Amino acid sequence: MVDVGVLGATGMVGQRFIELLDKHPEFEIKVLTASPRSEGKPYEEAAKWYLQSKMPESVKDIKVVGTDPSKVGDVDILFSALPADIAAKVEPKFAEEYVVASNASAMRMEPDVPLVIPEVNPDFLDLIEIQQKRRGWDGFIVTNPNCSTIALTLTLKPIHDQYTIKRVYVATMQAVSGAGYNGVPSMAIIDNIVPYIGGEEEKIETETLHLLGELEDGKVTPAHFGISASCHRVPVLDGHTEAVFIELEEEFEIDDIKKIMEEFQGIPQKLELPSAPEKPIIVREEEDRPQPRMDRDESNGMAVTVGRLRRDVAFENSLRYVLVGHNTIRGAAGASILNAELINEIIF
Amino acid sequence: MVDVGVLGATGMVGQRFIELLDKHPEFEIKVLTASPRSEGKPYEEAAKWYLQSKMPESVKDIKVVGTDPSKVGDVDILFSALPADIAAKVEPKFAEEYVVASNASAMRMEPDVPLVIPEVNPDFLDLIEIQQKRRGWDGFIVTNPNCSTIALTLTLKPIHDQYTIKRVYVATMQAVSGAGYNGVPSMAIIDNIVPYIGGEEEKIETETLHLLGELEDGKVTPAHFGISASCHRVPVLDGHTEAVFIELEEEFEIDDIKKIMEEFQGIPQKLELPSAPEKPIIVREEEDRPQPRMDRDESNGMAVTVGRLRRDVAFENSLRYVLVGHNTIRGAAGASILNAELINEIIF
Amino acid sequence: MVDVGVLGATGMVGQRFIELLDKHPEFEIKVLTASPRSEGKPYEEAAKWYLQSKMPESVKDIKVVGTDPSKVGDVDILFSALPADIAAKVEPKFAEEYVVASNASAMRMEPDVPLVIPEVNPDFLDLIEIQQKRRGWDGFIVTNPNCSTIALTLTLKPIHDQYTIKRVYVATMQAVSGAGYNGVPSMAIIDNIVPYIGGEEEKIETETLHLLGELEDGKVTPAHFGISASCHRVPVLDGHTEAVFIELEEEFEIDDIKKIMEEFQGIPQKLELPSAPEKPIIVREEEDRPQPRMDRDESNGMAVTVGRLRRDVAFENSLRYVLVGHNTIRGAAGASILNAELINEIIF
Amino acid sequence: MVDVGVLGATGMVGQRFIELLDKHPEFEIKVLTASPRSEGKPYEEAAKWYLQSKMPESVKDIKVVGTDPSKVGDVDILFSALPADIAAKVEPKFAEEYVVASNASAMRMEPDVPLVIPEVNPDFLDLIEIQQKRRGWDGFIVTNPNCSTIALTLTLKPIHDQYTIKRVYVATMQAVSGAGYNGVPSMAIIDNIVPYIGGEEEKIETETLHLLGELEDGKVTPAHFGISASCHRVPVLDGHTEAVFIELEEEFEIDDIKKIMEEFQGIPQKLELPSAPEKPIIVREEEDRPQPRMDRDESNGMAVTVGRLRRDVAFENSLRYVLVGHNTIRGAAGASILNAELINEIIF
Repeated sequence: MVDVGVLGATGMVGQRFIELLDKHPEFEIKVLTASPRSEGKPYEEAAKWYLQSKMPESVKDIKVVGTDPSKVGDVDILFSALPADIAAKVEPKFAEEYVVASNASAMRMEPDVPLVIPEVNPDFLDLIEIQQKRRGWDGFIVTNPNCSTIALTLTLKPIHDQYTIKRVYVATMQAVSGAGYNGVPSMAIIDNIVPYIGGEEEKIETETLHLLGELEDGKVTPAHFGISASCHRVPVLDGHTEAVFIELEEEFEIDDIKKIMEEFQGIPQKLELPSAPEKPIIVREEEDRPQPRMDRDESNGMAVTVGRLRRDVAFENSLRYVLVGHNTIRGAAGASILNAELINEIIF
Repeated sequence: MVDVGVLGATGMVGQRFIELLDKHPEFEIKVLTASPRSEGKPYEEAAKWYLQSKMPESVKDIKVVGTDPSKVGDVDILFSALPADIAAKVEPKFAEEYVVASNASAMRMEPDVPLVIPEVNPDFLDLIEIQQKRRGWDGFIVTNPNCSTIALTLTLKPIHDQYTIKRVYVATMQAVSGAGYNGVPSMAIIDNIVPYIGGEEEKIETETLHLLGELEDGKVTPAHFGISASCHRVPVLDGHTEAVFIELEEEFEIDDIKKIMEEFQGIPQKLELPSAPEKPIIVREEEDRPQPRMDRDESNGMAVTVGRLRRDVAFENSLRYVLVGHNTIRGAAGASILNAELINEIIF
Repeated sequence: MVDVGVLGATGMVGQRFIELLDKHPEFEIKVLTASPRSEGKPYEEAAKWYLQSKMPESVKDIKVVGTDPSKVGDVDILFSALPADIAAKVEPKFAEEYVVASNASAMRMEPDVPLVIPEVNPDFLDLIEIQQKRRGWDGFIVTNPNCSTIALTLTLKPIHDQYTIKRVYVATMQAVSGAGYNGVPSMAIIDNIVPYIGGEEEKIETETLHLLGELEDGKVTPAHFGISASCHRVPVLDGHTEAVFIELEEEFEIDDIKKIMEEFQGIPQKLELPSAPEKPIIVREEEDRPQPRMDRDESNGMAVTVGRLRRDVAFENSLRYVLVGHNTIRGAAGASILNAELINEIIF
Repeated sequence: MVDVGVLGATGMVGQRFIELLDKHPEFEIKVLTASPRSEGKPYEEAAKWYLQSKMPESVKDIKVVGTDPSKVGDVDILFSALPADIAAKVEPKFAEEYVVASNASAMRMEPDVPLVIPEVNPDFLDLIEIQQKRRGWDGFIVTNPNCSTIALTLTLKPIHDQYTIKRVYVATMQAVSGAGYNGVPSMAIIDNIVPYIGGEEEKIETETLHLLGELEDGKVTPAHFGISASCHRVPVLDGHTEAVFIELEEEFEIDDIKKIMEEFQGIPQKLELPSAPEKPIIVREEEDRPQPRMDRDESNGMAVTVGRLRRDVAFENSLRYVLVGHNTIRGAAGASILNAELINEIIF
């Protein structure tokens, strides 16, 4: 077993890390960090458990420590559920010594930090060596993208592999859990939509092209199609829904697109990583799917469900679909864990 | 006062007609029709009132009659809130004698039936003469578009007048009231989104181009830009939200787009029709508006609120915005009434 | 394995039966019935699956038959998820030959039909013999109570065993699933409460006293304390919440009440019936529990969670608590299955 | 016009004060206070407007001042929407000079501070003189009860006047606005109920008896029947729903109870105070009313709607009903304003 810890263990994403790691065949939670006012308390007391599953027995008695490299002791991997501003300050310090698999946005676009979806761009892990050399670290940081980006990019990847994408328009309908437990007041969202999520559109636009780009000579050249996002918060607990419009350079058949999505697999599937869904993309034929409440838990929340895949006759070589992905599993904690599983398999 | 009736008066849209007509300075409700099982009952007994306003006193004692031309008596205008399949059968019969201002989709795309938004294409009313001649009717039918189309087209109109639209992508987040009172079970939509609304995408795509088209020699030539829609039902009671992406032929400044939207007015504003909003489009500057619960009642539900108007740097000459319009007022009953007010002013 | 069938297999409760039976160690689904328009279709085609779990593979290809004793063939137990009016007509016909474990209300208050919660009044099964004799049936009918009654009665039982209950007041906050998939329109319940559920208050008041009554000489004498219910529909998907106020004859300590609830067990626990929860009542200490979304799935939906257990100082010998129970599992399909498991163990 | 101010003007209740005072025939807003970080800003900039109505033009340019007696200048009445802890500190200071009509709970149970519902116990205003003498204040504090207490007590008053109440049990289903804009996270309440609201049950139990008590010789003797509350937060925006069970000493007819509720009027109605509803209690006959979304705005949010008034056959001389009252209008800002209107009429 690899000993691991969770940085920022009391929040929404921190709890998802704990939930997913509790049953993990390779990783064992040894340390949990939180803000100073939780320090010293057993986790059971430090955290109000937000998930419908119960707090795992295994973490209840772990004494929470501060988010400080001097306090986490002898572990191999640290999963970071820290807010971006704190992550920016402390993740580099942890990386001097530890492997940090981070869900935070702080370091994602650093040129020597791999921003990785294992099914999409596992080769970006080659940046680790560069990162360690340049920064003189014994550990390193690997990051996963923003929640809505992961789901979108997973579905673009098989298309990008076979066709030339010219344009992507995406309108997201995002769950409230994406903002953290206290992020969206009920007064703001019952019987309502909020058509704005700070920084989200920029993240989708930037990270997607980066993930689908090329790593050459230690540098990532982003993919160069146009991508435009409009992001909206909706009264849904978990599961981001995205309406996607794509224009390709080449002619295509809808059945071919469906086939390459259904057959799409990456390294995690080949290596049978513990958290890897058998199929990263599930294509549904019903006219009214995917739906967040019905499809977010597909493959333990690790697969993205695509539906309403159809030709867009308004434009040449165009198609449309709707996707649903679990924003705090595949889009956050599960993404970091899959990254760590890949690292554990091919690097350690 | 012009004597009017409401066909299909007990449903959601029928009730909105009654609510809006109750205070109307020019129209007075004289007859209400419904299905056979309500016939003969006073309206108060025939209808379960769904709106937050109270059932107007003026209609409580009106005896509901069947939806049959022989039963509506001496009125001038009939507002139709009938379901499409029934409308297809009975609206033509009513039109032999009566003016029918219909919210139903049945007759919208008939070549001699005006599909009209008074601010957008009032000249299409010229089709009335052709319709009457061809069909030998003393009355006629005039229709308004689908709820999500009206809001979208109102915002496209000032742009279409000044620029050449090349592409429109729109993702809608539609309120449950659009499906009628019993249309969306709570089990289907609490903590959920349903990414499908039967026929809606086709209506948006067809009707928008038709409304922005040209009437020449008695024939409508649709506008010919590309338009693609993806429609979604969300847990919102009233008010459709739409994320719009537009590409233009020409260069533009965002401030110019904002200005032409804010200054946009049509015949209803010039004629000061009773239901006309002072401004058909309200542009808001806050980063988190428009929101359906906060903005649907703007100008008594007759204006469309636009926000997040911003350049789309991913594509040449492109912009994005989000709109909210009240689907059963500006998008249904209020639309038919505004049509009737225009007819009353310029034809009667 | 005991071969079983589900009557009314396409609705909400029918689907819960299938979901629970699919993994069942003793029962195997052999036949599914539905209304005539589904007859002959494979279940996968006949039913739109409403649950978040997936439709079990094992039932997809079962050809649905009509709800008619001549069509169900060679099975031992039939679970009934039929609406009350249909149940009243057909359950007696099925009982001529089959064991019917019914969730329908139709036959519950028949003097020779056992209305049973296995932890509460398993001895009522003695009525079966009387029922068979009187009616000349080879099979029989056993029923479970209404959803809100089951949860309430389970928590009253240990108190009733040790103390003399004088009064019970209960205000329920019931999930929309209790009305069936199409039962509560979203327009009726978003941002709202409906303070009325037809027949529900009477069922709680009558069935609770019946269940806590005595069976002597083939007749049930109901318990004779006062019980008053007020029932409300709330925007919750699954899980009924009930606020309970109780006055006892005797003095008590809150800790004693807590203890007898926590330690409460019945025959299902002693016999280790497959669906029996280890503890029928879970007592939580947190001040803000139980909550329907967090606690409805406790013990696979078969336990009732009690919280806020506190003395009621306003009245002598009084206490208050809040409970949550899963209305379509412990309160419907799971209740019938537990009844059948008990019958299978002690009668077959 | 009487010049008034609002203490704590940027929160939910502060905004309701502004909304209601904007159209007020007797009161004119001259000063708005808020926390230090809003000081000096025009109200438009200091407050994010939460209500569906628009921010009144009249307050947009008012420069917000700190919540400090030295800063509010020359006004006659100060409405307090302060949180309890701050109110406890500053309201007494304001009262040295100003009339403070407070919605805060801090001073409600002080023996010389009138806790008043004008229809229920206007005579408690006699405490003002005692308060001023004892404390040496030129101004004074008058308070209104907690939101759920006001609605309950209004409906108990006519019964209490004619009969001897023995017991009251009440289960509340309270709107999220009662906790303030940020009080209830959407993650906590979508598809859920929270069966706990800190201090609420105690407030209902204490304040109700106080309000229905007797003021004699400068001291309030509370009414002495038993009252027990169980409080629950539900996913409703505005409007508290309460299920009420009452036992009386005397026999009664339901029609008599209905009559005394419908005919109930108090001093506000007799004096025709501007905010007084024509009828404080509206009794509805429909079996499924009152509902919070449909009935909260009754009489501009100032009346309480009662429905399902029915005999409770389980107990002697008992009845049950359900009520809905607007928690931030009749239950908060509107309550303070009605108090001030009464003071303005009979004291100033």
